[in-house]
Amino acid sequence: MNLLVTLNANYLLPLKVMLKSLFLNNENQHFTVYLMHSELTDAQLADLDRYVSAHGHQLAVVDIPGDYFRDAPILMHYTKEMYYRLLAFRFLPEDLERILYLDPDTLVINPISELYHLDLDGYLYAAAYHDLLTVKEINRLRLKPYPIDEYYNSGVLLMNLDLQRKLIDEQAIFEFVEKNRNRLILPDQDILNALYGKRIKTLDEKLYNYDARYYRLYKLLSNGLWDMDYVLRNTVIIHFCGKRKPWKKDYSGKFHSLYKHYERMVN
Amino acid sequence: MNLLVTLNANYLLPLKVMLKSLFLNNENQHFTVYLMHSELTDAQLADLDRYVSAHGHQLAVVDIPGDYFRDAPILMHYTKEMYYRLLAFRFLPEDLERILYLDPDTLVINPISELYHLDLDGYLYAAAYHDLLTVKEINRLRLKPYPIDEYYNSGVLLMNLDLQRKLIDEQAIFEFVEKNRNRLILPDQDILNALYGKRIKTLDEKLYNYDARYYRLYKLLSNGLWDMDYVLRNTVIIHFCGKRKPWKKDYSGKFHSLYKHYERMVN
Repeated sequence: MNLLVTLNANYLLPLKVMLKSLFLNNENQHFTVYLMHSELTDAQLADLDRYVSAHGHQLAVVDIPGDYFRDAPILMHYTKEMYYRLLAFRFLPEDLERILYLDPDTLVINPISELYHLDLDGYLYAAAYHDLLTVKEINRLRLKPYPIDEYYNSGVLLMNLDLQRKLIDEQAIFEFVEKNRNRLILPDQDILNALYGKRIKTLDEKLYNYDARYYRLYKLLSNGLWDMDYVLRNTVIIHFCGKRKPWKKDYSGKFHSLYKHYERMVN
Repeated sequence: MNLLVTLNANYLLPLKVMLKSLFLNNENQHFTVYLMHSELTDAQLADLDRYVSAHGHQLAVVDIPGDYFRDAPILMHYTKEMYYRLLAFRFLPEDLERILYLDPDTLVINPISELYHLDLDGYLYAAAYHDLLTVKEINRLRLKPYPIDEYYNSGVLLMNLDLQRKLIDEQAIFEFVEKNRNRLILPDQDILNALYGKRIKTLDEKLYNYDARYYRLYKLLSNGLWDMDYVLRNTVIIHFCGKRKPWKKDYSGKFHSLYKHYERMVN
């Protein structure tokens, strides 16, 4: 299976934790981990390569031509890395048909193959949206007049690379950014939703993009079905959304001990 | 290493979870699990035997002569099983020098060998007490005039069987129960503390009998040192004390997700 990650040095440890959870809970699978980055040192890359190899998998550093984003608009404190996820299809091997992008602030706690082999016919992506009315409404108003029915989260993104090569045009993306630069908050996620929202197949967030902050809400809204037992047995990907992260001091949350369990196995 | 467990049918699943955590986090050790019980069926015993064997360890069912507790006083809703832990030395093989008793409502999340090989010279037991002023004071008053400096928790009990065979007298225990039958709340723990408290070596509760309810308190009292990271890396035994148990519906707590992680691996 092909996995895509994009990251900077601050996320090296979380990336290892995410990969550890993925490997442990998918023991009969082989993964090629494609890495897009712009600032990791050779030593960091070598360390990551050893780590992935030691688990029996393969790291592939994606080559991004230095001048590719020369004319791309950038926003405030964002770097050109904000385009990596959306334009990955340009830099990945041409024979790759699909790839699963995962944020490094996730844990994979169950087998991933059903997600990976999902039928994507006609869709550019599969993703989940977090079904909270306030979030949806705010983003719908913010990105008007772009047609936002749901505001998809781009932290777990199954990609149909074949179709992306046919339908996605980086110039349209750059123009969109230029035109809307004053109202983009999470640029890559905003672009994804505004330009490609209609071509995204919806995933069940509780299975594939479980927001770790909303345990009580998910449980309540499901009349108690999604209790801790059910989550551990059914959820595939837990996403530690938001500013507070479980590898930082003073984090607190329902999945804190589980996260630390995996983290402890890394170093 | 020798492990002692005593249980009834309600605790079969938790026992398996505890053993799973013990085996996984002590991979280079071999365990003989001595079981004292009075009501498990042959099918349940066979199932438990298969489970322990499948992990490469050994189950040994302890034979307790049917009339041994004929004259022992019993209390309200307690059965004669309340004596099993205290008098285990009578029924275990005579060449066994030490054994570690563990409650089934525990998880073993780190290597146990340092605890197991602790110097017990002159001590009957090693145990931890939960250092909360209120608990200590209440029990000191309740068990007056018995000398209670600390009220030890009997859920994790390293036993010096050699010395127990020399110093512990079941008649003294039965007499104590007869005489104090109206004020014993947790009989075996009360007996342990009132009669043998001075012969117990104190264990660090945060390492060996970490009360899962007191995460915040432990962290606060240690000026933040015992955060989740530190617990996962250092605590050996987490004890799910109290009425609410993590395998029951509607449990909630800091180690809920970690418990469910181990539980999921059992069935």
